[in-house]
Amino acid sequence: MEQMKSGISPAVREPRTSGPVRIGVLGCGYWGPNLIRNFAKLRSCEILAVADLDPKRLEPVAWAYPKIKALNSPEALLDQDDIEAVVIVTPVSTHYELAKTALENDKHVLLEKPLAASVKQAEELVRLAEERGKILMVDHTFVYTGAVRKIRQLIETGEFGEIYYYDSVRVNLGLFQRESNVLWDLGPHDFSIMDYLIDEQPIGISAIGAKPVRRGDWAHESVVYVAIHFRSGLLAHFHLNWLSPVKVRRTLIGGSKKMVVYDHLDPDNQLKVFDKGVEVSLGEDLSKVLVQYRTGDMWAPKVDQTEALEIVCKHFIDCVQTGEKPITHGQVGLQIVRLLEAAQESMARHGEVIEL
Amino acid sequence: MEQMKSGISPAVREPRTSGPVRIGVLGCGYWGPNLIRNFAKLRSCEILAVADLDPKRLEPVAWAYPKIKALNSPEALLDQDDIEAVVIVTPVSTHYELAKTALENDKHVLLEKPLAASVKQAEELVRLAEERGKILMVDHTFVYTGAVRKIRQLIETGEFGEIYYYDSVRVNLGLFQRESNVLWDLGPHDFSIMDYLIDEQPIGISAIGAKPVRRGDWAHESVVYVAIHFRSGLLAHFHLNWLSPVKVRRTLIGGSKKMVVYDHLDPDNQLKVFDKGVEVSLGEDLSKVLVQYRTGDMWAPKVDQTEALEIVCKHFIDCVQTGEKPITHGQVGLQIVRLLEAAQESMARHGEVIEL
Amino acid sequence: MEQMKSGISPAVREPRTSGPVRIGVLGCGYWGPNLIRNFAKLRSCEILAVADLDPKRLEPVAWAYPKIKALNSPEALLDQDDIEAVVIVTPVSTHYELAKTALENDKHVLLEKPLAASVKQAEELVRLAEERGKILMVDHTFVYTGAVRKIRQLIETGEFGEIYYYDSVRVNLGLFQRESNVLWDLGPHDFSIMDYLIDEQPIGISAIGAKPVRRGDWAHESVVYVAIHFRSGLLAHFHLNWLSPVKVRRTLIGGSKKMVVYDHLDPDNQLKVFDKGVEVSLGEDLSKVLVQYRTGDMWAPKVDQTEALEIVCKHFIDCVQTGEKPITHGQVGLQIVRLLEAAQESMARHGEVIEL
Amino acid sequence: MEQMKSGISPAVREPRTSGPVRIGVLGCGYWGPNLIRNFAKLRSCEILAVADLDPKRLEPVAWAYPKIKALNSPEALLDQDDIEAVVIVTPVSTHYELAKTALENDKHVLLEKPLAASVKQAEELVRLAEERGKILMVDHTFVYTGAVRKIRQLIETGEFGEIYYYDSVRVNLGLFQRESNVLWDLGPHDFSIMDYLIDEQPIGISAIGAKPVRRGDWAHESVVYVAIHFRSGLLAHFHLNWLSPVKVRRTLIGGSKKMVVYDHLDPDNQLKVFDKGVEVSLGEDLSKVLVQYRTGDMWAPKVDQTEALEIVCKHFIDCVQTGEKPITHGQVGLQIVRLLEAAQESMARHGEVIEL
Repeated sequence: MEQMKSGISPAVREPRTSGPVRIGVLGCGYWGPNLIRNFAKLRSCEILAVADLDPKRLEPVAWAYPKIKALNSPEALLDQDDIEAVVIVTPVSTHYELAKTALENDKHVLLEKPLAASVKQAEELVRLAEERGKILMVDHTFVYTGAVRKIRQLIETGEFGEIYYYDSVRVNLGLFQRESNVLWDLGPHDFSIMDYLIDEQPIGISAIGAKPVRRGDWAHESVVYVAIHFRSGLLAHFHLNWLSPVKVRRTLIGGSKKMVVYDHLDPDNQLKVFDKGVEVSLGEDLSKVLVQYRTGDMWAPKVDQTEALEIVCKHFIDCVQTGEKPITHGQVGLQIVRLLEAAQESMARHGEVIEL
Repeated sequence: MEQMKSGISPAVREPRTSGPVRIGVLGCGYWGPNLIRNFAKLRSCEILAVADLDPKRLEPVAWAYPKIKALNSPEALLDQDDIEAVVIVTPVSTHYELAKTALENDKHVLLEKPLAASVKQAEELVRLAEERGKILMVDHTFVYTGAVRKIRQLIETGEFGEIYYYDSVRVNLGLFQRESNVLWDLGPHDFSIMDYLIDEQPIGISAIGAKPVRRGDWAHESVVYVAIHFRSGLLAHFHLNWLSPVKVRRTLIGGSKKMVVYDHLDPDNQLKVFDKGVEVSLGEDLSKVLVQYRTGDMWAPKVDQTEALEIVCKHFIDCVQTGEKPITHGQVGLQIVRLLEAAQESMARHGEVIEL
Repeated sequence: MEQMKSGISPAVREPRTSGPVRIGVLGCGYWGPNLIRNFAKLRSCEILAVADLDPKRLEPVAWAYPKIKALNSPEALLDQDDIEAVVIVTPVSTHYELAKTALENDKHVLLEKPLAASVKQAEELVRLAEERGKILMVDHTFVYTGAVRKIRQLIETGEFGEIYYYDSVRVNLGLFQRESNVLWDLGPHDFSIMDYLIDEQPIGISAIGAKPVRRGDWAHESVVYVAIHFRSGLLAHFHLNWLSPVKVRRTLIGGSKKMVVYDHLDPDNQLKVFDKGVEVSLGEDLSKVLVQYRTGDMWAPKVDQTEALEIVCKHFIDCVQTGEKPITHGQVGLQIVRLLEAAQESMARHGEVIEL
Repeated sequence: MEQMKSGISPAVREPRTSGPVRIGVLGCGYWGPNLIRNFAKLRSCEILAVADLDPKRLEPVAWAYPKIKALNSPEALLDQDDIEAVVIVTPVSTHYELAKTALENDKHVLLEKPLAASVKQAEELVRLAEERGKILMVDHTFVYTGAVRKIRQLIETGEFGEIYYYDSVRVNLGLFQRESNVLWDLGPHDFSIMDYLIDEQPIGISAIGAKPVRRGDWAHESVVYVAIHFRSGLLAHFHLNWLSPVKVRRTLIGGSKKMVVYDHLDPDNQLKVFDKGVEVSLGEDLSKVLVQYRTGDMWAPKVDQTEALEIVCKHFIDCVQTGEKPITHGQVGLQIVRLLEAAQESMARHGEVIEL
């Protein structure tokens, strides 16, 4: 992961000595099978057990991977001493309890995003992981895509100059979730990408949401706009929408030297770097402002197409083996939950800026 | 203009009797020549004079249209008695004075957008036009495009169902303006489209802006996000940006029955109507919410490709001749200025919602 | 498969009585695993064995599907009496021998495209299958896509009017094959789509090819253009290319009433139906020809997104069970090989038209 | 024009001495006004007269350019002694007679493409121009676009390596022409681009056409495919179509080092240069061929957006003034007519290769 964000923290504990890492997976719904498939390909780990409350969900796993034990309760899995690390792919509301038990049972933990349902829970998990010397990692998948890693590299080399603005759009039709809203569903993706790319700490956040789809008492935000403010004046903005007829996943980053368009859905050119910019100068009598435009070539760097989830799984196992701190470690997961919680609060206050 | 918004107001005054309408054009910079070209094609009017303070700008007009008188001062034009109507294509800061004089000299007025630099000025012009019984029209060009007129038609037939949200993006590189910001430059386009399409009156507006490009004391917003709130809960959102490496002019309108994507830059399919939607129902035990998706055909209706400015010019002359109230009459222009002024105020207050 | 081409032939033999169809798969290279994955999902069949000469290729299958017997020789599989049907996913040069043995051993056969390496071989297989009363089917996958089936439906309803021309482009970078050229690699896809869509029989074929990439004695066509002529005057044209930097898979079908663009790579609108056309009339003095254009709406019908290979596998098993003739039965496969062989001959004769 | 093809021929005659070049324009139909508009902007020339048989077509010119004399017969214009150069924008069938008279009257000539209706006529004009020492230039507009000039530059630097193939598609709906077919209408564009870009001389040409739209005796090719063969093995292919529901103007050029996609309709990235390629090597035992792919970055060089017609007009006047040979001089125009005539002959012979 040499292309990843610099400043990797020192090892959190003594490295493991030998043999494949023995893991268990909690949750076998929509996303779980993807993680199982990727961990199953790694020679550096071995999936001992998978648990889900719903036996039907375990069936295809049991069929495809007869060597993996299928359990009907998470507790049974978490009690298993030979499991060193657990992967939690359950609804957010259960993250805290499951991860807490796992850490208390001295297991390393990889959680599906977001880390937890509240800042308080997230803080507690981070504290516990540090106390126990265990790896705590969040599956912020997009951080591990070739495109996002490439942007990070370009930012680090100073290629873009000063970052002028950051604009992110992630819209599509569905999938509505009963217990969540579009902010908590899609927000972690874009907040974690931004957190990975922008070195500065945000100082405030504001958000506006709409709940056009409702039935009885049920109404969750399905259209949300979030603005994140930085001390330097940098403004990051996010459009999250479950009600768009078209799928858009596009981030614009405007820099003083270069500008980039990251379109996750463009198979050929996920990343386009534009040699475009604006220069402002003052005229002689100071009353005049002159603006000059630069429009040069466009360059679409080749982007590593390795499935990000494969890298996530490998990175987690590597960290367990070496004791290295993951790129998207607990503190990072906590920061994303902070942004989510504050954005939710801002929505309740009609878009008031919440200080961070 | 039968496809236009219904509820055309009654004639503001007695219709003219005969002959081509004699007009004068104030301002010959970037946009002026486009208006001159379009008025010159109409047999129902005759351009008597064009005025600009900068003689260089008049040269090409004088060369191409030798019959049109080229004047170096707006006053000279406004004083000319045989001119019945003036077209004002000058910087916003001059709109009020020029339009006021024109109306006081009993001339009909077509103004480039926005109507004026403040609500106060705009109100004054509307009042004056009514008092004098003169046509006051703003060139909100996009309202006259085939695509926008078609959307209006579809909304009127109830094709879209309840409007869930309105999302508009208008971004590109430049053109920076010394005395303006991106809100006042691009906002009038999208606010006027929304005003034309959405029948409900907005109740609040909030906006956030960034001024990354600055030099000395000079700094204007070049990235702006605006949210407009309606009593029904409808949320309209606008992204205006002078610093984007790519040009995007796209509006999403999500309805309960249909959703539309209006992409002004797609030459073949400016309008796409999607038979897509979401339905939410409650489960038997009321604790469960069931969501169903509908994804059907897409339909790209043929859109009238007549140049919108041609329609604008013809509509103005028609209104002068018949006394009919223009689609984008003074009150409409005033409403757009209200939105601009309130959005500007909200930016100064860090995104606070300004009541309308 | 009710949406498929009408005129399904009568059953070729008595239907099977009961139980899942027991199948064997020959070949586990690039495409084999996709067929195994799809057959493995069907409850109406059971994969008893898989054979490949290369033991390394069998490893992942053995790991993922421990119940399937992994064999190192096709003979061992073909000799197995309890196997009723075999799926042949090996290089074309081996198709004839393997399919012949399978049919002689009274097994139903599904072959990867193309059916065989020559017309002679293909004819022999068709004859043999008829003689033995066995199902012989070719995996012309694209015929089973939702988009192609939808086009067929639209043609059958007369929606397009008279077909004016058929233009197909399938270009991308690679995959070069040592023993094949781009005609035999990509041609079967497009020829089989055309064969399925166009009811008329072709009367001639001509082709031109280039072999820019060569090394030593090795040189195969990597850029090929094929024209297929019909008695009615209809012209079908194909561009097949292994050396294109961009991937294009687009078919235009121009009809007198409607025109369709089928873009396999457009995830949202694979099919676009245009209400566009041309009408020619003679002027009064007969010396003048008047041309009128019709440009109306565009309509993108919803297309069934089921993976085509899933339908192929299910259709094969259904045919084995019911005795029904497959859509892409042996005669169809033979016709495609006829086109390939004739096109190859035309290339050798510098594009001379070969009668069919 | 320093970016243009190297090897400019020596001056054809003594340069003119002074003053703006006095020109006349023959033909004021669809394309004529565009040429008039561009010549009118040049200070180095002066349009003295325009002639058209149809007085209605002269009206708008007379109105817009009152200083230009409007004539009802070409002869009147060609007889005018003070006109040094004529621009012929009339139907192809009239090119020969008009250009011949002009050259015989010692005028320089710029002709709309194609140069003439037959090789014989074209040869005669080239001969005459040389005899009289006059400039003879054809308006092969696309040769003067920024994109085509940029490709030429890249080819000259060897950036692409060996040219593997050339594939050109120019399809759209209409405009049908009574006296022409799609080959003679669109072919000159693509043949002239290829002629400008590829240094090698073609040795053969073959073509296939369809005439699906017909009425009474009237039937012209509206779908045509042309292949041009070079001694090196290079194959150039052209798809010309008046019956496509979508507009495509795309050229692929595959080189051994780089590949380029030139999409005339992509406003942002007309030119995309791909660092993609294929390398073939022989295995140790010579029986194996190994193929390796290279897929690197994509680069979209900035392209000069000056209107090509503006460059055409300026280049013609420059050549008249300096005596320099135009880029698209008579011999070039003759070569294009040769290709057209041979392609037409090949169509009549069912695609037989015509030697050049």
